[in-house]
Amino acid sequence: MASDIKHIGILTSGGDAPGMNAAVFAVAKTANNHGIKLSGIRKGFEGLIDNDLLPLDPNEMQRLMHQGGTILKTARSERFMSAQGQNKALRTIEQNKLDAIIAIGGDGTFRGMLALSKISNIPFIGIPGTIDNDIAGTDYTLGFDSAVNTAVKCIDNIRDTAESHNRVFLVEVMGRDSGYIGIHSGLSCGADAILVPESNEDINYLLHKIKHYNSEDAFIVVMCEGDELNVEQVSSKIRKVNAHIDLRIAKLGHIQRGGKPSAQDRMLGIRLGVLATKAIINGESGKMAGVCNNKPTLRPIKSVMKKQSVDAETQDLLTLFCG
Amino acid sequence: MASDIKHIGILTSGGDAPGMNAAVFAVAKTANNHGIKLSGIRKGFEGLIDNDLLPLDPNEMQRLMHQGGTILKTARSERFMSAQGQNKALRTIEQNKLDAIIAIGGDGTFRGMLALSKISNIPFIGIPGTIDNDIAGTDYTLGFDSAVNTAVKCIDNIRDTAESHNRVFLVEVMGRDSGYIGIHSGLSCGADAILVPESNEDINYLLHKIKHYNSEDAFIVVMCEGDELNVEQVSSKIRKVNAHIDLRIAKLGHIQRGGKPSAQDRMLGIRLGVLATKAIINGESGKMAGVCNNKPTLRPIKSVMKKQSVDAETQDLLTLFCG
Amino acid sequence: MASDIKHIGILTSGGDAPGMNAAVFAVAKTANNHGIKLSGIRKGFEGLIDNDLLPLDPNEMQRLMHQGGTILKTARSERFMSAQGQNKALRTIEQNKLDAIIAIGGDGTFRGMLALSKISNIPFIGIPGTIDNDIAGTDYTLGFDSAVNTAVKCIDNIRDTAESHNRVFLVEVMGRDSGYIGIHSGLSCGADAILVPESNEDINYLLHKIKHYNSEDAFIVVMCEGDELNVEQVSSKIRKVNAHIDLRIAKLGHIQRGGKPSAQDRMLGIRLGVLATKAIINGESGKMAGVCNNKPTLRPIKSVMKKQSVDAETQDLLTLFCG
Amino acid sequence: MASDIKHIGILTSGGDAPGMNAAVFAVAKTANNHGIKLSGIRKGFEGLIDNDLLPLDPNEMQRLMHQGGTILKTARSERFMSAQGQNKALRTIEQNKLDAIIAIGGDGTFRGMLALSKISNIPFIGIPGTIDNDIAGTDYTLGFDSAVNTAVKCIDNIRDTAESHNRVFLVEVMGRDSGYIGIHSGLSCGADAILVPESNEDINYLLHKIKHYNSEDAFIVVMCEGDELNVEQVSSKIRKVNAHIDLRIAKLGHIQRGGKPSAQDRMLGIRLGVLATKAIINGESGKMAGVCNNKPTLRPIKSVMKKQSVDAETQDLLTLFCG
Repeated sequence: MASDIKHIGILTSGGDAPGMNAAVFAVAKTANNHGIKLSGIRKGFEGLIDNDLLPLDPNEMQRLMHQGGTILKTARSERFMSAQGQNKALRTIEQNKLDAIIAIGGDGTFRGMLALSKISNIPFIGIPGTIDNDIAGTDYTLGFDSAVNTAVKCIDNIRDTAESHNRVFLVEVMGRDSGYIGIHSGLSCGADAILVPESNEDINYLLHKIKHYNSEDAFIVVMCEGDELNVEQVSSKIRKVNAHIDLRIAKLGHIQRGGKPSAQDRMLGIRLGVLATKAIINGESGKMAGVCNNKPTLRPIKSVMKKQSVDAETQDLLTLFCG
Repeated sequence: MASDIKHIGILTSGGDAPGMNAAVFAVAKTANNHGIKLSGIRKGFEGLIDNDLLPLDPNEMQRLMHQGGTILKTARSERFMSAQGQNKALRTIEQNKLDAIIAIGGDGTFRGMLALSKISNIPFIGIPGTIDNDIAGTDYTLGFDSAVNTAVKCIDNIRDTAESHNRVFLVEVMGRDSGYIGIHSGLSCGADAILVPESNEDINYLLHKIKHYNSEDAFIVVMCEGDELNVEQVSSKIRKVNAHIDLRIAKLGHIQRGGKPSAQDRMLGIRLGVLATKAIINGESGKMAGVCNNKPTLRPIKSVMKKQSVDAETQDLLTLFCG
Repeated sequence: MASDIKHIGILTSGGDAPGMNAAVFAVAKTANNHGIKLSGIRKGFEGLIDNDLLPLDPNEMQRLMHQGGTILKTARSERFMSAQGQNKALRTIEQNKLDAIIAIGGDGTFRGMLALSKISNIPFIGIPGTIDNDIAGTDYTLGFDSAVNTAVKCIDNIRDTAESHNRVFLVEVMGRDSGYIGIHSGLSCGADAILVPESNEDINYLLHKIKHYNSEDAFIVVMCEGDELNVEQVSSKIRKVNAHIDLRIAKLGHIQRGGKPSAQDRMLGIRLGVLATKAIINGESGKMAGVCNNKPTLRPIKSVMKKQSVDAETQDLLTLFCG
Repeated sequence: MASDIKHIGILTSGGDAPGMNAAVFAVAKTANNHGIKLSGIRKGFEGLIDNDLLPLDPNEMQRLMHQGGTILKTARSERFMSAQGQNKALRTIEQNKLDAIIAIGGDGTFRGMLALSKISNIPFIGIPGTIDNDIAGTDYTLGFDSAVNTAVKCIDNIRDTAESHNRVFLVEVMGRDSGYIGIHSGLSCGADAILVPESNEDINYLLHKIKHYNSEDAFIVVMCEGDELNVEQVSSKIRKVNAHIDLRIAKLGHIQRGGKPSAQDRMLGIRLGVLATKAIINGESGKMAGVCNNKPTLRPIKSVMKKQSVDAETQDLLTLFCG
């Protein structure tokens, strides 16, 4: 079965995430060990449309694991939404005799691959690469641990200045509709309150607590960008219940995307890259390579196309510390 | 059942590990929520012998989570090996009316608690705190992720100078008899070879590979302090098969113990601290609070008093990348 | 002369800056070596009004040098603007028999000390502590190097994601009316354009360059918070000349204030703390301890109460790289 | 005069140092602005012998400033010691029509350039690139600030574990015969004693202080690799005066060479790269581009070929804090 696969293409699509390069390296290494050629497809589906491929040598990539971002570049491709774009992509696959594709990205990336699989029978495996940790079927997505560590370093910094001034800080972290980055970074930094998209009640806890805040210490609120309320609205509500506080806002923004990947994300990239490549060799397709209960796991792509909800243990921690 | 527990003592013992303070904070917070008093026992079993306790207030400890080391201080206690020392410890327990003890440390710490449990029926729960990841019954020990991240940063630095000079570097990492720090940091940094205590063959792979090394790039060897051969012996063997190389040695040493805990270790400390405290409240004793397959899990202490062996997936990765 | 000084008070006021704790430690050590008692005044002038003092022992502070923020806490005091507040401050000075005050902060802090010196003849020395590097009479202010290093790490992170997407990033850094943080961090990160308050022409350079930007690479603009235009205005101008670009905004904000001080800021804190204490002992007053042309230098406070302009060499570099 | 220079060669030689890439970028940018071609000579004098040159485009290098090490690679060339090697180097210069050379490195590099200048009249300018800060004629050498910051982070880490165990740590830092890295990192970390090559008395201070050490806190000794005594000898002397202490050794080693350059080193690289290129354009030769009293300064190479001694202010600080 493995003998069928002679040439794999790999792409990264959607938002970049630290650890993507480790995954690409692991795919290159595994493919190379099996005598399979690997080509990088640049800029996600854009490169598939434009026939923009480059050969990948594992010996050249060993040193790139510590780089943030993705050396393959990434993009969100509007052209790939159209039949015309998808047909061009098919031509690239045929011209380069690609026998399989490994696609690293989030739900948009997987939707793209599912669309492609409707007009082609090329095998593909997905790898969950997004800092948001919002994909079901895996304990963690690639980039999540790095993003949390970056957020934690930033909030530690903010605590320094907050304690010096006895200030309240409202820190917005990334995560789209998911509260994971907010919960992990907030708990890790000893936040006084955490606002997540998954709860409508947390604002009441915050307002109750801040009402009794005596300005004799730092008070750190971590809130997720996907919360029902935005930073300005929360800020306004806080001021209403406690007019005397010294309140500042910090939106961490895109610095959470970049930087050297954490050790966990490099290991996760390696684990998922190896798992995905072996899956391709074993004739699998239409699945996502993830880690479930800390074990490498293949799940049908369709089953993971829903948001990862906050697990019960994490929810309990959130309630215990900030609820 | 919970009503029996009014006062918990907590200690850290053996080598310090990043994340211990997060665990202590989580115990303080959980105990406080249940109206239970918490006292820190300073310097591990030494403080138990010397009645050296301090009250712990969760509101004071929130800000200490980002600190490396242990604010309770730690020690290896010879006095506690004797009946006399243990009897003094008992007296401290009685005088302070401690109803339970939570002990954070490695196998030595757990042996100490088992010894104490033979002369006393005070309930206790262990939390695995050691950078070495060498305790069975948990996916990871507290401090492991931080130590790996520190090692990774160091090896990234070493790669910079190794590539500038086309040099071979032999980097020794910690881990006592365990290869985990070596494997995780080595794979994460794209090491060319990794020497672990768990294998006698890896040296042959290294020597074969270095024989053909052409000095046109960096060549990074990560070796564990617990390997059969020491750094000087490996260095000598390398020089024998390839006399022309420019070889340097770097022992990372104690810097791997310190530093701000990683986000994962803070979260792990919180998870295990909460689990241990709830176990105490629920009347459990003689167990270790760990995370198995990424789920909070209590295991009998006696069942974890053996070295964590390298799991099959990690062993496969090691073989694939450096075998 | 030195024999007159038996008790020094020290305060930090205005915005906190990394390195302030090193300066306090150095003052404590130097005072201690001369048999002089040192008291910390908490929350800047607020503590002087409220008689909120704490004794400082150099042996306790040795370990605090690596902490960001200020262990003395800081504040902007409105009460100290009034005669009543200043009179209360005088009473604190008399009650505690303070023979001199060392004040760490920016121009507001120095203005406060000048006000106090009008109603009292207590000797005082200022130390320039602000991340903005906007005080004349010193090559660098305390905290500037740390803030620049933090900004540099953030912009390095942003480059990772910017290169992955071929995006334009508009990064706002701190510095109030000064361009120093922007220039140093921008040059250090290879920014494509830097917008500073000191120039009205830099926007033209940016617009000219971005007009010809082909979206085949990252494009990083660093802009200072004190620039004539705000981030939204610059963003709007950019879009007008090149509608096709993918533009993102990142305001680094308060994370630039916190974090462990850099080695340079710790050394600068030590140098200025020693210089200030020796000046007090030598009977000096009304001066600022700075470093000019890399030499410890005392300058009359009144002569430094003006903005540090961008020096000619830095201006030339700015023109060469982004002008 | 500038019109004579059409093609500059640049090399890095000796030990690599963070900031070298910033200097190369600044030379590339400045040369490019003057219409001058720049070629990188790989592996120092080895590349000059072997005609191993590569073209340098400033637009490609902008993103490399944050990399540690040197993208030109470096080496210590034995062949260049011989007349044969130097003649081959001359041929490379002629074949490529190099009009000038900029050489980044330490005293060995400068000796190499002086040797070359005896058999050729090609203009050259040196840039002091070494982490050791042991070159006269400049306040700081390129790489020093980064190395100190790395050492400081390591010693901060060590303090965490030292305080947890109340241990004595003997930390060896780099610097060859110079005490600068030891003094700056030791003072910045609140070391209890610092041993430098420049003093024979410091060991007595250390032994006196450690004799009275009561094991109730951390005790950090920073010692320079070039000290009269080596780590083992110091360790042995310490144990003789205080047998009860818990002493550990940490040699920081090559991690001090690598890593992302600090902001100061990037700025210094830019400043010196611009100064050196302008000097070449202005017809200068045989000089080193440095920063004296924080001002860009050209000094005859021969006048800087002596060790930078510890300046009086730094010596005073050392005496005050550890003397």
